[in-house]
Amino acid sequence: MKGHKVVFQPDGFKIMVPQGTNLMKAMKESGVDFDFPCGGARKCGKCRVRIIEGNVQTDILEETFLEKQELEKRIHLACFTQVCEDIEVELLYKQPSQHKVLSVTEERVVQIEPHLSKRYIEISKPTLGEHLSDWKRLQKSLFVEDQAASLDISIPILRQLPEVMRSAEHTLTAITYGGEVIGIEPQDTSQTLLGMAFDIGTTTIVGYLLDLYSGREIGVVSTLNPQTKFGADVISRSNYANQEQNGLEILHDTVIRGINKLIAEAVERAGAKNENIYAITIVGNTCMHHLFLGLSPRYIAKAPYIPVISDPIVLNTSDIPIRINPAGRILVLPNIAGFVGADTVGVLLAAEMDKSEEIKLIVDIGTNGEIALGSKEGLFACSAAAGPAFEGAQISSGMRGALGAIDHVFFGEKLEYSVIGEGKPQGLCGSGLLDVVAGLITLGIIDKTGKIVAPDKITNPEAAFFKHCIIQVNGKNAFLLVKEEDTAHGRAIMVTQKDIRELQLAKGAMAAGIHILMEKYGVGVEDVGEVLLAGAFGNYLNPHSACVIGLIPKELEGKIKMIGNAAGTGAKLALLSVSEYKRAKDIADSVEFVELASYPDFSSIFAKAMYFK
Amino acid sequence: MKGHKVVFQPDGFKIMVPQGTNLMKAMKESGVDFDFPCGGARKCGKCRVRIIEGNVQTDILEETFLEKQELEKRIHLACFTQVCEDIEVELLYKQPSQHKVLSVTEERVVQIEPHLSKRYIEISKPTLGEHLSDWKRLQKSLFVEDQAASLDISIPILRQLPEVMRSAEHTLTAITYGGEVIGIEPQDTSQTLLGMAFDIGTTTIVGYLLDLYSGREIGVVSTLNPQTKFGADVISRSNYANQEQNGLEILHDTVIRGINKLIAEAVERAGAKNENIYAITIVGNTCMHHLFLGLSPRYIAKAPYIPVISDPIVLNTSDIPIRINPAGRILVLPNIAGFVGADTVGVLLAAEMDKSEEIKLIVDIGTNGEIALGSKEGLFACSAAAGPAFEGAQISSGMRGALGAIDHVFFGEKLEYSVIGEGKPQGLCGSGLLDVVAGLITLGIIDKTGKIVAPDKITNPEAAFFKHCIIQVNGKNAFLLVKEEDTAHGRAIMVTQKDIRELQLAKGAMAAGIHILMEKYGVGVEDVGEVLLAGAFGNYLNPHSACVIGLIPKELEGKIKMIGNAAGTGAKLALLSVSEYKRAKDIADSVEFVELASYPDFSSIFAKAMYFK
Repeated sequence: MKGHKVVFQPDGFKIMVPQGTNLMKAMKESGVDFDFPCGGARKCGKCRVRIIEGNVQTDILEETFLEKQELEKRIHLACFTQVCEDIEVELLYKQPSQHKVLSVTEERVVQIEPHLSKRYIEISKPTLGEHLSDWKRLQKSLFVEDQAASLDISIPILRQLPEVMRSAEHTLTAITYGGEVIGIEPQDTSQTLLGMAFDIGTTTIVGYLLDLYSGREIGVVSTLNPQTKFGADVISRSNYANQEQNGLEILHDTVIRGINKLIAEAVERAGAKNENIYAITIVGNTCMHHLFLGLSPRYIAKAPYIPVISDPIVLNTSDIPIRINPAGRILVLPNIAGFVGADTVGVLLAAEMDKSEEIKLIVDIGTNGEIALGSKEGLFACSAAAGPAFEGAQISSGMRGALGAIDHVFFGEKLEYSVIGEGKPQGLCGSGLLDVVAGLITLGIIDKTGKIVAPDKITNPEAAFFKHCIIQVNGKNAFLLVKEEDTAHGRAIMVTQKDIRELQLAKGAMAAGIHILMEKYGVGVEDVGEVLLAGAFGNYLNPHSACVIGLIPKELEGKIKMIGNAAGTGAKLALLSVSEYKRAKDIADSVEFVELASYPDFSSIFAKAMYFK
Repeated sequence: MKGHKVVFQPDGFKIMVPQGTNLMKAMKESGVDFDFPCGGARKCGKCRVRIIEGNVQTDILEETFLEKQELEKRIHLACFTQVCEDIEVELLYKQPSQHKVLSVTEERVVQIEPHLSKRYIEISKPTLGEHLSDWKRLQKSLFVEDQAASLDISIPILRQLPEVMRSAEHTLTAITYGGEVIGIEPQDTSQTLLGMAFDIGTTTIVGYLLDLYSGREIGVVSTLNPQTKFGADVISRSNYANQEQNGLEILHDTVIRGINKLIAEAVERAGAKNENIYAITIVGNTCMHHLFLGLSPRYIAKAPYIPVISDPIVLNTSDIPIRINPAGRILVLPNIAGFVGADTVGVLLAAEMDKSEEIKLIVDIGTNGEIALGSKEGLFACSAAAGPAFEGAQISSGMRGALGAIDHVFFGEKLEYSVIGEGKPQGLCGSGLLDVVAGLITLGIIDKTGKIVAPDKITNPEAAFFKHCIIQVNGKNAFLLVKEEDTAHGRAIMVTQKDIRELQLAKGAMAAGIHILMEKYGVGVEDVGEVLLAGAFGNYLNPHSACVIGLIPKELEGKIKMIGNAAGTGAKLALLSVSEYKRAKDIADSVEFVELASYPDFSSIFAKAMYFK
């Protein structure tokens, strides 16, 4: 059987499917965020896609739903479409008000409720008979509508007040936050109020520029976390912070500089200025959160993994030199535990786990995987120390999901694979490794203990073609994926027995975490209504492969949905709405964190979870 | 009639009295703060004084009240004592709980209620099963007694938290202010909590070091305001701030440096450290207040005299680089208007004007005199632009009340005077000028228009001896006080016609202010129960002279009391008690400020007030 590549636009999301697969089925199984209003019954004619490249097979019945001009534009309905070669597809249908696709993120509709308010006011001029202080007259002008209690003001703003007031004939725009006037600007600037939401990942920082009045996303910027040069993962960053001279300050300054560069890039692209940004929200894992704040991650990195703070915290630009309007506020979302950070809170907020009627499982796969399970009745979360296998590290041919990485593998009539950026492959990234191991399990080439079976013991006829790929490396079986003459660097790309053991450790940790959360919650897989895969890795892996290797329970395969950078979505929601920011705290407070290491029988659950069933 | 000098210890306060004056009478008239429980009826035997130098005449009846040992120690009762030569007297009797004499300040008893709280706590250590953040565990420990809502904490304190907590086995001292943990110190430091109260005068800065637990005054420090080199008065300071490059920053830095020097001096003398000081209160006139805060005084200095802020304001050490504990708070008392500042609020607080049953008049004499009138039924205040005559400026032989100044003058059988620091005189300070003019009015040498009468027109026989002192200067009469051979510099010290005109302008402004406040309040002099003279000048002048020239209405002469640096007392009260600090705001808010310049008939009231009646 042949495999084909399907690329979905505008996100560039890519999957591999067997010849003749129904496009709707492929989209559902791979977790592409798309709505099928009639559930795939071919009744509504809504699941419009446009074929950008390649050809598809469809059914003549489709034409009853489509206009002639649509067919000319190569628009088809996904439910009628079969994949018979590599194709590129544009997703057209969006359910109008409930969901919209933005980047690879599922967004939800939210009532805009900015943290800061900007108001243009005209202030009475003083006379000998009416001689109130500048600040008192400013307050009186602000209270025309709002008969609230008195406001606060800080010294830096007071220092500007007399001249700002008099520079434009006693008219100005006041920026308030809570009960405090935090900024004043001459004349009327109330029409501009921008903000940025940041997701600080260990590897990547993503920033979203938003209009805080309309909620409109103006731009997205991202960069490699510049701290990477001090260590790839949170443990090495923590060590650097603790052991090197001024290590903490260096890491703190580095991430702040990185964020300032992203802000500069975002405002330049948007034709705006740093001063137009008044609010920032921050999510990140607990270590990134601490380094952003300049807090020592020392006690997160070792048992019992204690953060300095888990509560949300609001800073101003004198606390942290983020280059936005000096009046601006930096709102940091809460953490849950040392290894379940504000990013997970962002995910839970984006997914509205606290309001969910059905039980959902959220999995964010990474070196430290975060798992949450629950519904509006209660939430549990844990962190699973998966190790670096999913990132391609400590895998013989492993590499990050970067240019030249094999990201998807398909065992059809022959072995096919896709390479990021096309060209000859250089290695295998996590999602590719998952596909290989899942394929080999399906073919019976890897047994349930994880052992590569000797070619003469393989009984599955579909595996016959691949027997010659089983080679010997250091006296052990290995699976040859790409011969040396077909790689970019002239070295063979293979999966060794040791690689499989590494993957078993990683998937075992995740699976044990899922198992234990279900046990704590008192539910079985049949009770779980939906599995949400969050984060970069979750967005690129093949859910089927994840289920075959047992990373996700097999029974949940049809219920998997990819929600992309949901942490970023959470940061955006918290930026646009005070209520959502407060809700993040409520969610973080309500989550019961489960420390796997101290869970009874953890070792035996973990050991069992390493098997391929 | 001969005059004698009486010096009161421990304050060094000095008066001149005629031969044979009863000491109690002299003390009452000159406003010395002392209690006469039986009102001077020679019945209680309480008004004990010790004669340090010189001899006194007393009555044999006195011995019925005193022990033999007391008589041996030269202890007498003021009510029985007559002054017959220069004496030095120590004041012994203090009414135990209501009043005490401290420096030249009248203090009142106040319930100690510190702004900050320090608490020693033992924090639970984390485990894998109990993995709350450091901050959460700190909060829990603080809430053992106090089940209040959650607390705040700032980033700088969070940065110290993990190491401070672990440096002493999870014991520490937490410093809280309002709902915020503002400082943490390893182990138990809760026994030390110091504070300083500052009165920033245009000329002098005084600082009081207090124990915030006991209220005990540990020390007093003072210095010439180092801003003096940029201008002697508030107008020249304001001009410097507005017209010179970085003028405002320079003046701000200068006063902050001055205060930091005083803090260093105070803690060194007390054997303490800057870090032991956790709270500072500040009073000062509105211009000094603004310069301390780094706020522009530009619009205070010109009509309609608008301050940037009048409300109280609380700062921390990152707002203003005052060298105290980094956790410390700087509490600035409120202003009333551009020329009635936080120092006046301090005076009103010290005098408890807001609770007074009887109507009181408070007068703080200076270049800008502040006047307040009222009772618990209501308060009025105004500022009177007296000009520099009281400071000895623009007076031909004038000088500040410094070494070499004639500070008191007595017209007895001949002319007698006292000189600050003894020695030959160099000039005449404000209080001396007042005495001279009052004396010459009494003798009929100055008429009610302020004119020095020609020697041949003088009719009063008591004035005969002084006729030869009337000399001609630039074709006008002048009064020769000290011949050139008797001065330190060989120039005669005199009072010219022009000097008298300057004094008339100054006293006229003050008297007009008093007149207008009474008119606004709807009371006459007979309704005023007490006149409180505040500030340095008020403390040194002879109240009789002030009444003779009409600076204070004659009818109030017996009701005058000197209250010394009452502004500083107000700052101390606000430092020791949150309620007193809040009360300062209530007082400031309740005062109705009267702008003299816009008062109907101000010019004619002022013109009349310049006469000597």
